[in-house]
Formats: sequence, structure tokens, C-alpha cells
Amino acid sequence: MDYQAILNILQKEFTPKEGMGKVASYIPELSKVDPLKFGIYLFCQDGSSFEFGDSQEKFSIQSISKVFTLTIAKEMLGKDLWERVDVEPSGTAFNSLTELERENGIPRNPFINAGSIVVADALLSVLENPKEDLLMFVRKLCGDNDIHYDKAVAKSEKKHGYRNKALVNYMKSLGNISNDTEKILDFYFYQCSIAMTCEQLSKAFMLFANEGKHFQTQEKVIDRQSVKRINSIMQTCGFYDEAGEFSYRVGLPGKSGVGGGIVAVHPEQYSVAVWSPMLNQKGNSALGMKVLEELTTLTGLSIF
Amino acid sequence: MDYQAILNILQKEFTPKEGMGKVASYIPELSKVDPLKFGIYLFCQDGSSFEFGDSQEKFSIQSISKVFTLTIAKEMLGKDLWERVDVEPSGTAFNSLTELERENGIPRNPFINAGSIVVADALLSVLENPKEDLLMFVRKLCGDNDIHYDKAVAKSEKKHGYRNKALVNYMKSLGNISNDTEKILDFYFYQCSIAMTCEQLSKAFMLFANEGKHFQTQEKVIDRQSVKRINSIMQTCGFYDEAGEFSYRVGLPGKSGVGGGIVAVHPEQYSVAVWSPMLNQKGNSALGMKVLEELTTLTGLSIF
Amino acid sequence: MDYQAILNILQKEFTPKEGMGKVASYIPELSKVDPLKFGIYLFCQDGSSFEFGDSQEKFSIQSISKVFTLTIAKEMLGKDLWERVDVEPSGTAFNSLTELERENGIPRNPFINAGSIVVADALLSVLENPKEDLLMFVRKLCGDNDIHYDKAVAKSEKKHGYRNKALVNYMKSLGNISNDTEKILDFYFYQCSIAMTCEQLSKAFMLFANEGKHFQTQEKVIDRQSVKRINSIMQTCGFYDEAGEFSYRVGLPGKSGVGGGIVAVHPEQYSVAVWSPMLNQKGNSALGMKVLEELTTLTGLSIF
Amino acid sequence: MDYQAILNILQKEFTPKEGMGKVASYIPELSKVDPLKFGIYLFCQDGSSFEFGDSQEKFSIQSISKVFTLTIAKEMLGKDLWERVDVEPSGTAFNSLTELERENGIPRNPFINAGSIVVADALLSVLENPKEDLLMFVRKLCGDNDIHYDKAVAKSEKKHGYRNKALVNYMKSLGNISNDTEKILDFYFYQCSIAMTCEQLSKAFMLFANEGKHFQTQEKVIDRQSVKRINSIMQTCGFYDEAGEFSYRVGLPGKSGVGGGIVAVHPEQYSVAVWSPMLNQKGNSALGMKVLEELTTLTGLSIF
Repeated sequence: MDYQAILNILQKEFTPKEGMGKVASYIPELSKVDPLKFGIYLFCQDGSSFEFGDSQEKFSIQSISKVFTLTIAKEMLGKDLWERVDVEPSGTAFNSLTELERENGIPRNPFINAGSIVVADALLSVLENPKEDLLMFVRKLCGDNDIHYDKAVAKSEKKHGYRNKALVNYMKSLGNISNDTEKILDFYFYQCSIAMTCEQLSKAFMLFANEGKHFQTQEKVIDRQSVKRINSIMQTCGFYDEAGEFSYRVGLPGKSGVGGGIVAVHPEQYSVAVWSPMLNQKGNSALGMKVLEELTTLTGLSIF
Repeated sequence: MDYQAILNILQKEFTPKEGMGKVASYIPELSKVDPLKFGIYLFCQDGSSFEFGDSQEKFSIQSISKVFTLTIAKEMLGKDLWERVDVEPSGTAFNSLTELERENGIPRNPFINAGSIVVADALLSVLENPKEDLLMFVRKLCGDNDIHYDKAVAKSEKKHGYRNKALVNYMKSLGNISNDTEKILDFYFYQCSIAMTCEQLSKAFMLFANEGKHFQTQEKVIDRQSVKRINSIMQTCGFYDEAGEFSYRVGLPGKSGVGGGIVAVHPEQYSVAVWSPMLNQKGNSALGMKVLEELTTLTGLSIF
Repeated sequence: MDYQAILNILQKEFTPKEGMGKVASYIPELSKVDPLKFGIYLFCQDGSSFEFGDSQEKFSIQSISKVFTLTIAKEMLGKDLWERVDVEPSGTAFNSLTELERENGIPRNPFINAGSIVVADALLSVLENPKEDLLMFVRKLCGDNDIHYDKAVAKSEKKHGYRNKALVNYMKSLGNISNDTEKILDFYFYQCSIAMTCEQLSKAFMLFANEGKHFQTQEKVIDRQSVKRINSIMQTCGFYDEAGEFSYRVGLPGKSGVGGGIVAVHPEQYSVAVWSPMLNQKGNSALGMKVLEELTTLTGLSIF
Repeated sequence: MDYQAILNILQKEFTPKEGMGKVASYIPELSKVDPLKFGIYLFCQDGSSFEFGDSQEKFSIQSISKVFTLTIAKEMLGKDLWERVDVEPSGTAFNSLTELERENGIPRNPFINAGSIVVADALLSVLENPKEDLLMFVRKLCGDNDIHYDKAVAKSEKKHGYRNKALVNYMKSLGNISNDTEKILDFYFYQCSIAMTCEQLSKAFMLFANEGKHFQTQEKVIDRQSVKRINSIMQTCGFYDEAGEFSYRVGLPGKSGVGGGIVAVHPEQYSVAVWSPMLNQKGNSALGMKVLEELTTLTGLSIF
């Protein structure tokens, strides 16, 4: 069965309906999104692509951005990064302070908020213009300059971001934060506010399905070992306290965001982005998880 | 580079030395093992095999047995099993009671002790002769009848197994245990006491690298979806509180035991078992982890 | 206002009504108790006494027994006891395993289940006939031989005591238990099954309101420092996760049991026992707490 | 034995020596204190007083200030205060976030940092000039206007107060903070910076040993029930994770601060303040605890 046939089935089988989950509501900007939006974009290593629905509409990528910042930080800092953040699944909610206390301020992995804040802090120390540099990196990965921060979202996150403020100050008290906490949070909230389409996300993540090379130019961006490692972290830590469930059902490395987006990659096969803003109780796109499970069931392929 | 060449390199590069870790000592039977034992056996989907060192010597597989019991339980109970045990990484030590308390007696996954005890309980309810049936299953997977329980080990585990006794009674108090707690522990300690060689383990685990088919007869034992799911659980939960580290460094699904064994599989490529009894602080074979990392680095292949 | 006048007010003001709380139901024997039972007995240092309601009816003292065993253990073991159990409030439920894990098997205090099990273990090591010796001690304190174990309750506790079995085995695994776990639990369940009336309890606890002397014979049983210390532990740890609340509202050292009994003492004034089987959400007698708060409000006296 | 004789004994028996503990070092201002300072001041209800050593030298009262703010807040807010902070011992360190997470942002009691920050927030909402009003209150209690904030200490606390910043932001994220977090912390750090002598502290705390009346004017400041309740909270929560130990050894309600001060009261008898800056591992004055234990042993009196 080819991918077009599979997407046809998915489109028929899955329709967003009210009650499937709840749109993120902790900031007004995210709560305004139409819950019935639904789109998917699948990009293959051979350059072919398949899509349906709202695959060309931008949405807030939120935590998916953590993969981008991790990729840059890993390149620039190498092993030093792992002195400050671990690579273990967390076993609790994405913004828990309990584990952080138990682990003396070393976040369990770079995809929980505390971990990504440490990554942001690390980037502030090495990038000249962190915000611009990050945006340039993402644009380059997609081969598309029409990618921007959503300042209203960033501002609103900042206004309501008390939990993240608690996290950064707590880690600062334990010696795991170097820069000014306000500057770090400012960069962190901007990073989360990036708006992208399914197509853009899918293309950007081809990096992890194409041995570290750019999907278009085939230029090497990161080496194969980095791909293996970042994919591994996505596999074990990409879905908050539902990483095992996603891995079990879908069988691919991936990353979700509270904007309702999920990106997953099948190394040397494809990268796929799906968007449906209704979240399940663990904070992941309810419909997105189902669609991706069916996708790997229909293709009969997963990394396992 | 072919596998023989790679194993030659590994053999040259890695030699067990005192101080690399500590042999498990919580029961006398395990502490007697020569810490310098070291063997590896790699079996390819095409039937070729490669080995060196103590690959033909039996050792206590301990927690590796949890994969066998999970496989049987999953086949016999299907989805009902997941009402009683989750598939999420645990975020704490293999025998922690804290998480169990937080999760109301539902173990985080079938590879922590509590989870495997629930699996043992489930098997007691559906198998006529649990101990024999399990042994038969493992023998059949290996195509080798020379596999036995080590009764001295089982007896010793029973004598010192207060922590596991605490776990089963705690879950019983929360309604997640059906059978007599002593009978469950008896079966559980026997299961852990199975002694196997690297060759036997590697062949048995081909099931998970060969689409669910027997390595020799190519008879279908479990379906592909089950393979995907069990591999996924190994990937996210197979190494106690070091699952992320193993996934990050090695990039393959696998399972370790305190006897010093590790088995890992590369779906549709190979299954590999390594044995070195010196454990790191997280309870996994110190040398074993290094050898497998180098293996996937040299092959340039992982599931990612 | 004299005590008789105060008890008259209490009797008028407080009437047990359905819905005030729930009778303990984890064993059938306790759940059979009439929820509307209600009695109080107050014994003064000068020998006068005041009572109303079901003050002469026996009920299961349950955790109140922990004060008796602690008193004996403290006398016999002295400071050695505190190597094995601490004197800090617990901050969680009476039967939590989480704290025990954090504290490496040293229970926070002798009034949570784990702590009292350690005390029971200690007594097994020093008493010749633990069950008889305990009963003799309590009878002597009350000057009343009509005090017995309720074997049906003890048996039933044993049958359903999986949580306590978990606790004792867990501590055994951490080296804080000396005797056979079954024997310890047997003694522990017997101790909890003692049946006493409000009058008997109130007289027994005069020990702690009478400088360590017997209420009748004035014979010295324990020294004043022991009184101070046991009262202190009752004050900070006597009501599970509601110790602060009881101290705040009532202002006296005391101990409760899931049978619905509460005993409190005002040093050098009186000892008072109240019984009402309906428990609040924290497992303490709902009406009992209210009555005692009003008692200290009306007397205008507390230890503070 | 009279108090003078007892103090003579204490002075002979106890001498501060290096190595007894560690002076608080998290801010430079506190670490500069001479570790060998040692003073005691005991004020009796009958107006007599006894002292020795550095009893007239000011030191940073730190957490002892939490009793003053609680007293004001309790008077002004009444029962509403208890919607926002509980009265249970905490079971963990004074600045733990774990418990706060478990309890959904409601601090366990007003004497852990989180709880006192909630009290500070409450006071900001009702006091016109919080800093001045607090100082006036304390001065009035002591009958002494020579009491001031130590601005260098307050400033330094602010500079290093990341943990407290984490706490206030975390509670804000859970809806338990009303005012601007920076303003709250500013007030909180000032409150902790108050410098007082043993004499001043002892006189101020007579409130809690004199039925709520001023030690000099006998004017009623708070009612007897408030005295009972605040004493109760001191008894169960006044010494961080060592409240049970203090209660067990000393048997009086009291409060300590990391400046090395401890105040304790024996209702209707006396109020006593001791100062020795060397802290034990739990953060309480090592010598101070010993001296007070001996005091109640020698007097033969405690609340129990």
C-alpha cells in the first residue's frame, strides 16, 4: 500500500469531533484555536510528499521547539551538555518540581520544561543573537523563510509562566543556571511561540530521518551519531509522561507540543507532522496519537 | 565491515578488569560468579553467527526472564494485561515502592520487579503448569532443551526476597494481585533463576528481530505488532533507571539482568547477547553496555 | 466551671448522627460496630471521675495500643530504640511506604504502622511471653483484669493485613527487622485487637497525667522524663496526618485508633477517653475530635 | 532549684566550641558571625529575669520572625488564613518543593518557608505599611524601640534567594499567591532580617507564656485561644524537620532561626531565648537545643 492510499484511509477514518480532548487553555492565545483543525503532512526520504486537511496552516509548535534547541546545543556544547541535563525518561508530569528536587537540580531530560530551560541557558552562553540564530536555524532546516515567533503567544506565556519561573529559580538555587533568569525565560518563551505548518515541521524533522542531512540540499547538518542520539531521546522522553505509550502504540521517535502538534520520524523512510489541538489528559494531541498509530499499523513499519 | 571483523575489534578493545563494577551480592549464589567472565554471541537473521569468550557458559538470566513471561502473558491475556500494568518508564530504581504508592498499585511497566510480579500473577491464573510451561517456551524459542532452573538460586532469592515480598503484598493490599502471594513469588524467583548461555539467549531473542518468527523453523510465534510493542517496552524500560542512557548510547531495544547479561535486538538484522557480571551503579553490566555501544557505533546501524 | 458541668454541656451539644463520618470497614469485625455509639470518661488526678454515654462499653482500641507497646519498649530498651525508629511527625498517611523508602527503612515515629511494627519486633526480642506480658501490663495500668484480646479481630486483621505485611518485609529488606516477620505481625495484630472501655483507657493513660505513677496505687511505673517524652510523641505524632490539627484545636497530647477511640491527657490534671466510631477522612474519630476541642475550650485549659 | 542556680549550672556545663556545628553560610552577612557567641535570657511571668553570656547582643532572628507575622496574620484574617496554609508538621526540609507539589500549593504549615511566604502575601493585602507595621508590632511586644531591619542582610537574602523565588512563583502558578511576587519576597526578606537580642526576643515571646498579655503592661494583645493555637504550631512545626526531636527532648513550644537563635516558652512560667550560631545538620542551633534540653531537665518542668 502506498502512502497516498494510506493517507486516504486516515482521512476517511479520522475526523476531529468535539469532546475528543481539550484545547490548551493556560494562556488565552492558545485557547482561541479552533479545536476542529486537523492536518497531516508526510515527507519521504525520496522527496515525495503527502498531505490532507489543515496541513498548510500555522500553529504554535510549543514543546516541539525543544528538539531544535537541543540539536543546536548538542552541536555547540557536545558532552558538556550532559553534565547539566540527563537523558532519562521522567516518570512524572512535564513541569514537576519533585523529581528536580530528588535529582539535585539536574533535569531528567532535555524535553521536560526544566531540561529545556537548561538548554536555553546553555544557548544564551554560546549564541550571539539567540533568538535570531534559532529562527535562522529552523528556517534553514525547512528551506522556508516564512517562519516567525508569535510575539503575542510569547508575551502571554511570560505573563502566566510562574511555574517555569519557579523551575529556573529552583535550578539557579542549586547551581545549574548561569545566565539571568529573566533573560533565559524570555528566550524560552519565544522559542515555544514559533508558529509553523505541518509541512514546515515535517521538512525540518527530515534531518532526523535523513542521516543528519538537509532534506533538499543533502548537506550534512549533524552527524549520524547525533541523529541516533536525538532520536533516542525523542523515543524515550518525547511525550511527557506518555512516552512509553506513544512508543508502544506508534513505535517511532517523536515530539509533541501543547499546541496540538506531533512530529514523528521513521529513520531513512519519512518524517510526518500531524496537528489536532484537542489534547488528552497527558497533554498530547488525542487525535494525533491515534492517527500516527494507525499510520504505522497500515504501513506495517516502525523502528521495531 | 562485516560482523566477524567487528567482533574481532570488540574482543581486542574490551577486556574485563577488576574494579569495572561489582558482581551482584544480595544472594550468595550470584556473588560466587567469576567477575572476569566475558562473552558475546551475535546471531543474524540470515542464520550466520559470531561469538567470542565465555559465550557458551551458562549464567543466571535474572530480569531478562521478564521478557519471556511478558511475551507469554501478552499472547494469552491481550489488552486485559494493560489494565494491571502500564508501559511507561519508571523514573526510579527497579524495586521502588514510592512510585507504586503514587500510582495506586499499578506498576509503571512490566520490567520493574512489581510489574513482572503482576505478570507472574497473571500467568499463574492462566497456565496449567506455570514453571514447566515457561521452561518449555524458552527451550522452544532456543531450539535447545538444555535449559533449566537453577534451584539453588531460586531458593536463595526466596530466602532473601523481602523487598519482593513487600511489593507483592503491597499490590495485594491495593487489589492488583489475584493469587496466593507465596505461590507468585515462588514462580517469580524460579523464573529469574533460569540459566542460559549467550548463544541460547541470543537465539531466543531472535523472535524480536525476526518479525515474531522462530529463528530456525521460521514458524510464526507472535505477530508483528506484538514484536513492535515488546521491543518498544524494552527500548523505554529495559534498563531500570538507565533505560534512556542505554537507548541513547546503544540505540537498540534490549534487556539486562543482575546476573550481568544483556540482550539487544536490531529488528530484521540481528540479536546479540553479552555477559560480564560486573555491574555499574544502576545495576546493569558495565562492560556489556560499553561493548554494545561500540557495536552499534562500528556497524553504523541502530534503529534510529 | 467544674468537670461535671462541662460534661453536661458536651452531652447536650454533641449527638452522633449518621453521615458524620465512616466506620472503619477494612475488616468485617470493625465494620459491624454501631456508628452511633458515643461515650466519654474523664478521670482526674484527684481521683474524681465523670462520664456519660457508652463509656462502659468495650471497643477495639487499635492504634491506641501503640502507646502501650512504646511505653514498655522504651523502658526495656532505652536509647537503643531510637536507633531504629525516629520521633518526627510523618507528613503522610499512617501506612505510607514512600517515606520509609526515603528514610531507608527507619520509620519516622513509633505511631505510624511501620514504627509500631519495629516496636513490636523489639518487644519480641526482650519479652518472654509478649502477648501475655502486654496484656498484664495494660491490666495493671487500669487496675482491671477484665481486658482481653479480641481474637476474631486479630484474625481478621491478619487475613487482610497485606499492607502491614508489605511494611514489615520492606523494613526487613533494609535490615531494620530482627524476628520472623509472621511472628511480628501476629503480635502486632493481637496488640491492635485489645478491647477496652473508655473508663479503662482513661485510667490506663493516667500514667501520662500523673508523673508516671499508677492512678490508684501511686506506685511509680515510669519516670517523669519518660512521661514527658511519650507525651511529646503523642503531641506531634498521635493523629497520623492530622497531628497538627489535633494539637491546634485541642492542645493536648493524645492518641487515636480506627476503632473510633481517642485518649488525651492533660498532665497533672486529667486523662480523658472518648469513643465514637465514625471516622473523618484522616481516619480519626470525627465527633471525638470535636468533643475534645470543646472540652479544652470550656475548661480554658490546655498544655499551651 | 531556682532559675539563677539553674543558669549557673548551664553556664558551667556548656561552652561553645568550634566543630559543634556550622554557621549559616548561604549569605555572606550571616557567615561573618563569630561562631563562639553564646547567650541566654530567661524572663519569668512574675517579672524576674536571668541571663548570661552574649544575651545583650543583637543577631539575625531569621525564621523566628515567622511567629510574629503569623500572630498578626491570625489576628487580622482569622479562619480565612487556614484556607491557604495548613497546620501540619512538614516531614521534610524547610524549603522543600516536593510536598508543596503533593499538596497543590497549600504549604503544610506557616513555619516552613512556603507557609511564611503565604503569610507575608496575606499581610501585604491587609497592612497599609507592612514593613513599618511589623516593626512597630515587635517593638511594642518588647517594650523597646531599638529594633531594626538589617538592610544588608535583607539585600543579601534577596540576591541569593532563588529557592524562595521558586517557592513563591510555584505557589502563584497554583493560585495561592495574590500580590506581586517581588513585593512579597521583599517583605519576606526584610522580616527575616530583623536583628534582636536574647532579652528582646524573650520579652516579645512572653506573649505566648502570659495568656496573650503584654509582659509589662499586662494589656491583652491576643486571646488565650490564639496563644494555645500558636504555641501548638510552634510545638509541632517550629524546628523544620526536627520538630519532633525538639519536642521530645525539650518538651516546650519554640521556634528557631538559622541565625542561631531559639526561643521557647513555658506557658504561665517563662519565656527563654538562647543564641549560639553553630547549626546542626537540620539547621537548628546545636548548642541551643542542648541547653534548652538541660534547662527543662533541671527545672523538672515541661508542658508535658
